[in-house]
This record gives sequence, C-alpha cells and structure tokens, in this order.
Amino acid sequence: MYRTIGVLGGGQLGRMMALAGYPLGVQCLFYDPSSEACAGHVAPLLAYPYEDTHALSQLAARCEVITYEFENVPVESARWLAERVPVRPTPEALHAFQDRLMEKQTLQAHGVPVPTFAPIDPQNPRTALEVVGLPAVIKTRRFGYDGKGQAVVKTESEFVEAVARFGAHLLIAEAFVPFEREVSIIAVRGLDGTFAFYPLVENHHREGILYRSIAPAPNITPALQQQAERHARALMEALDYVGVMTIEWFECNGQLLANEVAPRVHNSGHWTIEGAHTSQFENHLRAILGLPLGSTAPKGYMVMQNILGDLPDPAKVLSHPRAKLHLYGKAPKPKRKLGHITWCFDTPEERERFLSEALH
Amino acid sequence: MYRTIGVLGGGQLGRMMALAGYPLGVQCLFYDPSSEACAGHVAPLLAYPYEDTHALSQLAARCEVITYEFENVPVESARWLAERVPVRPTPEALHAFQDRLMEKQTLQAHGVPVPTFAPIDPQNPRTALEVVGLPAVIKTRRFGYDGKGQAVVKTESEFVEAVARFGAHLLIAEAFVPFEREVSIIAVRGLDGTFAFYPLVENHHREGILYRSIAPAPNITPALQQQAERHARALMEALDYVGVMTIEWFECNGQLLANEVAPRVHNSGHWTIEGAHTSQFENHLRAILGLPLGSTAPKGYMVMQNILGDLPDPAKVLSHPRAKLHLYGKAPKPKRKLGHITWCFDTPEERERFLSEALH
Repeated sequence: MYRTIGVLGGGQLGRMMALAGYPLGVQCLFYDPSSEACAGHVAPLLAYPYEDTHALSQLAARCEVITYEFENVPVESARWLAERVPVRPTPEALHAFQDRLMEKQTLQAHGVPVPTFAPIDPQNPRTALEVVGLPAVIKTRRFGYDGKGQAVVKTESEFVEAVARFGAHLLIAEAFVPFEREVSIIAVRGLDGTFAFYPLVENHHREGILYRSIAPAPNITPALQQQAERHARALMEALDYVGVMTIEWFECNGQLLANEVAPRVHNSGHWTIEGAHTSQFENHLRAILGLPLGSTAPKGYMVMQNILGDLPDPAKVLSHPRAKLHLYGKAPKPKRKLGHITWCFDTPEERERFLSEALH
Repeated sequence: MYRTIGVLGGGQLGRMMALAGYPLGVQCLFYDPSSEACAGHVAPLLAYPYEDTHALSQLAARCEVITYEFENVPVESARWLAERVPVRPTPEALHAFQDRLMEKQTLQAHGVPVPTFAPIDPQNPRTALEVVGLPAVIKTRRFGYDGKGQAVVKTESEFVEAVARFGAHLLIAEAFVPFEREVSIIAVRGLDGTFAFYPLVENHHREGILYRSIAPAPNITPALQQQAERHARALMEALDYVGVMTIEWFECNGQLLANEVAPRVHNSGHWTIEGAHTSQFENHLRAILGLPLGSTAPKGYMVMQNILGDLPDPAKVLSHPRAKLHLYGKAPKPKRKLGHITWCFDTPEERERFLSEALH
C-alpha cells in the first residue's frame, strides 16, 4: 500500500517529512540512535547506533530509497547503505557538507562565491589569520550547528584565545563579512535533473539560532534571486544531487556569499508547509522517489518563528486567525527547538504591520 | 506531550484529522470495529465492536474528549461515553442526523427550509405520496450514504415498486427538487459559541457518489452565502453543537433547501487542507478542544476530485504542478473512495480553463 523510504535521523525535520509522505502513499521508516526521537511518534522508528550494520541491513531491506534529515550521520554508514539501496542525495554530497573546510572548497570549486577562508594549522595558526584578516570568524570544522562551535574575533589575542579554546577540534578561519542580512534558498532537484526553487527567505538569528524567517524575503530583485538559483543549480548539477538542498547566504551590496549548505530540508523552509503550493518536505520526497516536482510558488506573505525552550499557550498562539502552530512533540529544554509558528498574510502590507505591531 | 482525543470511526476522515492533529500537539486515538481501518496507519487504533463497553471504557480513560468521523455509530455507545468524558458534538446531535426523518424534522423545527417530506407508513404508503407528489425520492431512513438506499420515482407504480424493494427498512418520501446545483457549507462552532464558515462549495456527483467539488463555488451571491450561514448558525446554536457540521443544499432560484446534514467533517471540505488558511480537520479539533478557531478564508480557487475504485499513477497526477495528491492507504475496490486530488489556482480564470480543458 505504501512506498517506504528510510530516513537517517528522527528529529522534527523527519517528522514533518513523514506527515507530508502519508498523503502521497509514502511511509517513512526512521533510523535514529535515540528511541525518543520525535519522528517516531508519527511513523515507525529503528532505534540503533548509526554503526550497527545489522540494524542498517534491516533498514536497507525495508526501504526502496534512503535519505537524511540530519547531516551529522557517519558517512561510512551512508556509504554502506548505498551499496545496497539507492541513497539520495549521495553519501558524497553528505560528506562534502559535513566539514566546513570541504564545504567551502566544494562551493569554490563550482564557482559559488564564499567569504575568504583558510584552515587553521594547529602548529602554525597565525598563517590562517594572515589569509583572512581581522575581524575573523573561527569555526570548528565538524558538528557545529545553531551557532555552536563559532567565535567572532576582533583582535589577534582574541584569535589566539579562541583557537586555544576550540583546540581539540579541527578549525577553519573565515573573513568576517559585514553583511546586510542573511537569506537562504531552498532548491530541489528531481531524479530526472529538473529543478525547482523557492523564493529567497530572510533569516533572523538570536544567539546563533534561527529565530525568524520572512518568506518570501522583502526587497529581493529578480537579479538576486537568479544569482542564488544559478549557483544552486551549478552546485547541484556538479554533485548529481537529488532532493532538497539549502544554501544560506550573506547579502552584501547586491552580491551573495555562501555561508553554509545543508544537504537536506531546512528550518528556513518550514514556511512552505502552508505558504507554498508544495512544501519542501513533499518536494524532497517527490525528488528522491522520482516523482515530478510540485509548484514552489508562494501562497502569500509569511512569517515563520521558532518556538525555543518553552512551550507557549496554544490558545494564545491560535487566537491569531492566521497563525499555524507546529509542535514537534519534544520535551521543553533551554534553547531547544520545540516547534514553530507560521503566520500567512494576503499582502506584504499586512505582514509588515504584523511584524511592527504584533511581534517585537 | 500530547492531548489525546478519541475518534469513533477510523476511515479517511479520521486519518486526515490525525495528520492535522500532530502539529497542534494532539494525538487521535481511533476506535473502529475493523483492525484494517486506514486511520490506524497514522495513529493508534482500538479495534473493537462499538458495543464493547470494556473497550469503550479504555477509550474514555485515555481521552480528554471524544468525537466522530462517521455518523453511523450506535448512539447508545456515544451516550455511554458521554457519561464518562465530554463527547463533542453531543450524542443527541449525532442522533438527530442518523435518521433522515429526524434530520428533516430537526431542520424544519429550527427554521431551515427543506423539501416537502413524509414518513412512509408501511401499512399505508400512498399517504406519503399524497403529501410529496410526483416525481418523488424514496430513501431509507438509516444507513444511507453515497447514494445507496435511494430511488427517484416518476410514477405511482415506480413508487410501489421502490417501497416493496426497500420494504425491510423504515422509509421516507421527499418531493423531487428540480435543483440547479448542489452546494454545501462547512460550518464550525467553537466551545465558546463562536462561529466560522467556509465559503459555499459546488458539488458534482456520479452514480450518487461525490465526484468533484469546486471551491469556492462560482457565482455565489453574498445573499446566498448569508442564507447558508444564517441557517447553519440557527441549527448549531439550537443544538449547542460544537465542532464541524456540514449541510448539503439544493440551490433553486436563489433559494437553498437543505438536503442532508453531516455532523462531522465532510468530503466536500477536503479542499480546505491546502485551499484554506485552516482546514476543516484542524478547525474541528480546535473547536472540540476549546481552542480559538482559525481563519476559513480560501487561498485560491480549488477543484477537488475523488479517486474512486482504482488508484491512478501518482507520477501522472503530480505532473500537474498545482495538483495535491491525498491517498488514504486503502486497497482498491469498485467505487471505494481511495483518495482525492486538489488542484489550487491563483485565479478563477485559470480554474475555469483547467475544468474545460484538462478535466472532462
């Protein structure tokens, strides 16, 4: 009755993918080391370590295709699976974006502009600083997310201090970009090579965590949208990428500099659930299953805001007639992403009024 | 983590309600005599007969409120539950619309116009015919759906033949209404008595089964919409009804005559999943949980078409960029509702073109 796809990771991104799958006749089977993973509330879950080949072989046997909802899956596990069942996007695409140095090198190799960067040699860290200058951003190469493993340094002594603090990790230095705003593009490439792009979204962060997205982003020229699409297209074609890819950009004087790539659906695309004709989750499923992509056209003017740390009173949230609440079934914990709210407006003016009056 | 609601019935209406519930932090617990009920694919299911008070007590113990997705639940079971846990809408509202005679009497008692009707006395059937005239529609009072248990009769001998054929059942006779079209309204009343109404929808049937809905219906005057809302409001207030109610109407010369009431979410409201700011499923959950109702404003011009009997090739359906596929996870069977497709357009003209060119 169902086509079954395997999903490595079982967080909220997987959960929303599963909910998008049922109407298409698709069932997600999750694989996550934690038996509490919230995607497991809405679909079956295999709770085993990523290195457990016996459990991975169960996953491979039950699925026609495997994907990720989380990029810090060991690439060896993805490669092991790919020898047995199609894995989309490929383990090599996953690998390329797990490490911030490889990520920047991959972007650069395919003509995508990036801030000046240099790996930090623990024996001789100042060499990197000579390349990128000051101020700079020091980042751990692996496992950084939501602003963790990052430091902005303004002086050489701050640089030395940050390198010492992160010393146990491989590091990268990047030139600090005096950007005007951060925007992101959600791009999707089908199995047949067709593309679809959502409009650029404007993202606001608090303490390094995505806090709010405004979608479509205001004041985007067609040239800027085309710039983002052209780069995403070049990168995805070069990697023979299938599925949704997200690129976060710094916007500086009408130019885009790539900050980060997520080889998966993304928090800045949550507005697409009700705000676009086809959600990022559905289009990812369509892509990896070889189905035609759906329209990415927006259906209004959206604001998406994360629910971090504490659960709000649902009655209060829903008292705004255009609010859509999305809870992830997770226990409250400081700074944890527990859900999000999307408000959908018919005109940019209504959205503007909401942003200036109802939100602070 | 979740608020649990019990749902009597476990078909596709329940399934779509469960999918609408997860983002609100609501889990549905279904109760259906069949362990194969398709809502059970997406949420927990108690598969027991409706008369099993031991199983019903399990349901009552696990849920904060109970509702229906199917109206042919024994009213005794609903009453038994209502002594233990809130049941919304009330068992009395369910009861009123299970029987076509009580339904018409209830409508009439609250000032809602209905076609002329009369119960058929098996001892003296012709009396009913004298009341309603010819042509007439003969219907079984209970368990009719999708055109089953109905016959249009043009002559007295056809009438006698139909009465004999349905003889084992209680029957009602109705005057045949030379209607221009059938429309329906999805109305919702919150626990605090607030109302929300979706725009009237135009419904097309094939062999008595809903085949296509056009939403919002074209050529609806504000007066006609107000007429439908005023009647729904009067009826729901009189019954202290909480949740979604659907009223199907015959439109005749700018007047509405009520044909049927469903005390639940309805096939003609499926377009609201992507076509309205808040779906009928979500608004039903909000109502019975005492949450504020969401906006019922449409987000475009929709066509909803049922998938009956055979499953289509999903790739073919999805090759239309504005098509949204909804499969119910049910095995194919002649005339069975296996799913539906909703197409969303930005303008009435695009929808009109689609209806005249792409569909037949």
